[in-house]
Amino acid sequence: MQDSTRAESLKRLRYIEGHLNGVRRMIEEDAYCVDILKQSFAVRRAIEKLEQLMLEGHLRTCVVEGIRDGREEQVVGELRELYELANK
Amino acid sequence: MQDSTRAESLKRLRYIEGHLNGVRRMIEEDAYCVDILKQSFAVRRAIEKLEQLMLEGHLRTCVVEGIRDGREEQVVGELRELYELANK
Amino acid sequence: MQDSTRAESLKRLRYIEGHLNGVRRMIEEDAYCVDILKQSFAVRRAIEKLEQLMLEGHLRTCVVEGIRDGREEQVVGELRELYELANK
Amino acid sequence: MQDSTRAESLKRLRYIEGHLNGVRRMIEEDAYCVDILKQSFAVRRAIEKLEQLMLEGHLRTCVVEGIRDGREEQVVGELRELYELANK
Repeated sequence: MQDSTRAESLKRLRYIEGHLNGVRRMIEEDAYCVDILKQSFAVRRAIEKLEQLMLEGHLRTCVVEGIRDGREEQVVGELRELYELANK
Repeated sequence: MQDSTRAESLKRLRYIEGHLNGVRRMIEEDAYCVDILKQSFAVRRAIEKLEQLMLEGHLRTCVVEGIRDGREEQVVGELRELYELANK
Repeated sequence: MQDSTRAESLKRLRYIEGHLNGVRRMIEEDAYCVDILKQSFAVRRAIEKLEQLMLEGHLRTCVVEGIRDGREEQVVGELRELYELANK
Repeated sequence: MQDSTRAESLKRLRYIEGHLNGVRRMIEEDAYCVDILKQSFAVRRAIEKLEQLMLEGHLRTCVVEGIRDGREEQVVGELRELYELANK
């Protein structure tokens, strides 16, 4: 991972951890389930954004290099697997 | 939330927090992006499972009570909103 | 299903069928894969909107009646199953 | 799109069209909403499978060629856009 992608990823991760902490507090303090669920959806969407960031970094670096080095079988196989897992 | 649902939710949350910590460690230690993404997908799926658990608790308690109390407009409106948000 | 929901559902279905036909034409005429995929995503989102419409109708009628009739086990079980299937 | 991918895509599309027809019939014949929704989810999953097939074809051909031809900006940009749209 490039330094700028790692820095941005860790920044987003802190945000996600903070919001997940919010979910914990809401469960412990017996908040209304509907409100907890909304907070949880927001955490999930923030994780998706983080994944998009990391995927784009992966495409720009490892995928481009892999294909230039003739390792397209590996690179394409991994992308395919990621896409399947992402939508499971 | 019922006590049993809360206990189970907090147990799952600990699992999610542990795995999210794994994602952080992998980013910090510069693991392969593909492996980090797979771990992140697993966290997201675990959050979805937690949401299913909380939603089921909500249906069994608040929704049933709300409809019996004649508050179906509110209850149905909330479920509709949750469904839309969940799939955004 | 109520008459108004059915009429609206059939209208949306026609729209979906038309767009799916567009996907078929694009594949047959060898359009660029990226453009076909975008069209296919649009079809999928239109189906999701149709599902939201039908789900809301279901909540407003069968679910409310079922709970009033004391069949909450069945009604909640079905909603839970739908939620799980929707996110698979 | 390669001939084999196109043939397989059209085969899957026929399957999807058939199942979508099933959804239409169920709505017209006033089937139980829960059953219609399950059928609709199955259609959506079949479309996702078709998309995976087309995406894999795209990766194996256009993406590999594009990167070899030095058009990685375009190719990566498109993949990023597809990923974002797929999860919307």
